[in-house]
Amino acid sequence: MQQAPRVLIIGLGLIGASFGRVLKQKNAAYVLGYDNQDGVAQQAIELDVIDEAVADLGDVNSVDVVVMAVPVKAIGPVVSQIKHLIDQLTVLTDVASVKLEVVRAVQKQLGELPSCFVPGHPIAGIEKSGVTAAKADLFERHIHILTPLESSNAEAVDLITKLWQVCGAQVVTMPLERHDEVLAATSHLPHLLAFSLVDTLSRESENREIFTYAASGFRDFSRIASSDPTMWHDICLTNKDAILKVMGRFQSDLAILSEAIEHADGDLLRTIFTRAKSSRDYFTDLLEARSKL
Amino acid sequence: MQQAPRVLIIGLGLIGASFGRVLKQKNAAYVLGYDNQDGVAQQAIELDVIDEAVADLGDVNSVDVVVMAVPVKAIGPVVSQIKHLIDQLTVLTDVASVKLEVVRAVQKQLGELPSCFVPGHPIAGIEKSGVTAAKADLFERHIHILTPLESSNAEAVDLITKLWQVCGAQVVTMPLERHDEVLAATSHLPHLLAFSLVDTLSRESENREIFTYAASGFRDFSRIASSDPTMWHDICLTNKDAILKVMGRFQSDLAILSEAIEHADGDLLRTIFTRAKSSRDYFTDLLEARSKL
Repeated sequence: MQQAPRVLIIGLGLIGASFGRVLKQKNAAYVLGYDNQDGVAQQAIELDVIDEAVADLGDVNSVDVVVMAVPVKAIGPVVSQIKHLIDQLTVLTDVASVKLEVVRAVQKQLGELPSCFVPGHPIAGIEKSGVTAAKADLFERHIHILTPLESSNAEAVDLITKLWQVCGAQVVTMPLERHDEVLAATSHLPHLLAFSLVDTLSRESENREIFTYAASGFRDFSRIASSDPTMWHDICLTNKDAILKVMGRFQSDLAILSEAIEHADGDLLRTIFTRAKSSRDYFTDLLEARSKL
Repeated sequence: MQQAPRVLIIGLGLIGASFGRVLKQKNAAYVLGYDNQDGVAQQAIELDVIDEAVADLGDVNSVDVVVMAVPVKAIGPVVSQIKHLIDQLTVLTDVASVKLEVVRAVQKQLGELPSCFVPGHPIAGIEKSGVTAAKADLFERHIHILTPLESSNAEAVDLITKLWQVCGAQVVTMPLERHDEVLAATSHLPHLLAFSLVDTLSRESENREIFTYAASGFRDFSRIASSDPTMWHDICLTNKDAILKVMGRFQSDLAILSEAIEHADGDLLRTIFTRAKSSRDYFTDLLEARSKL
């Protein structure tokens, strides 16, 4: 592909819109955009997020790349609307935080997995949402995980890798199942623990008086409990197996810690805390090293 | 007491040194300081944290207030060194994050609870430690919990309340047992969950590779797992009952959440997440309101 590819972004939320904006800024693609909410695609043009708004996915007839930047549960319906484009695509990809379920949804719609299909997931922190939150540097120095399938061809992997690299992301590949396990451990479980702790505490006292006494440690720990309930409902139901596996291990480890406190086993407490601190300090070093890249 | 009280701070770590600095800055007290580490009290004079360094607690003979700013396990030894001062004191207080155990230690040393004794605990976030980290505004807009005892006299409660108010703290009182329960819930349990999760994850993969893929949610959630293992070892052993009680409730709630995922009970998942988000959003509002005081 000599000239800039034509990229269609379906779903102009924070991720889709940020991807569009940076591709446009770097002249790395001609960006078409579609959103099922009225007026959003037009707004995206005004915000310099896309070059061209698409009113009806059925009318699109010449694109190289399709990025489905929609929730997991919307992947199936979206694929059903772009069936006519699949044969001409170099890349079909997505950005969902669960991958096995996305692949199942694509397979269900198309009957097979097209060679252009390379699932992906940008590990980018999100505080705001919507097209107005689009940030050209959202992916800079962040990891983008690609999970190429046996059916994915090299040209597709190559092009989508280059596009994410243009955005400043560090692209890594891993197997589908590994992605879902890693995210269950590093993202899904922490969110569930934060939700569960805040829920436990709020039922401790009738009038939430207990939160008056919480300090900065609790503030940081529990921030993710303000996340969108519907999104987390979907994630729990679509990454159930990996979440239950790592949650089971956590529950066993927590039971061991609880017993150590009950039996005043000071040595074990110190061992657990020291091991955890060492790992967390390693993570801090990782973050610092990455911020200096 | 017409003139500024003579306040002896024992332990010139972050909390003790910050308390000294603000009292000095506001001319609210003549501040004496003692630290069992060589050179620290002298350093505190140079840093404008205290007016006068005390080399030997046995030599002190005229103070109105003693603040024991030392770890819980050091309270007993400290009290044994200031027995000769107790009768002349208006206030004896401390700053430990566990209160029942502090009261037990004082009672054990003195045989009874003196009327000047009013236990206390500033809820101030701590990232750094030591005398060089002293900050005059550390307690501003933070809560200071006092847990007056049946034996505490009104003059003592009144004076220590005024001194913490001078520091900008919002002073609240609550029963001893309630303090230990509240802290177990809002501080001790979150720390234990963070330690335990990081420990579980670090044993997931041999080379900590998993942390490479963690995002900002995990970073904030797990920050407190970098806390001092010895301090948390002490807290677990000295606030064992309250910690086990709230941890047990959390474990039950987490088991319910886990079952809801297993049985794909979407309604229950949505209910738990929505309830938690609502409580966490309430806490965010609380923090914002306090920052505007």
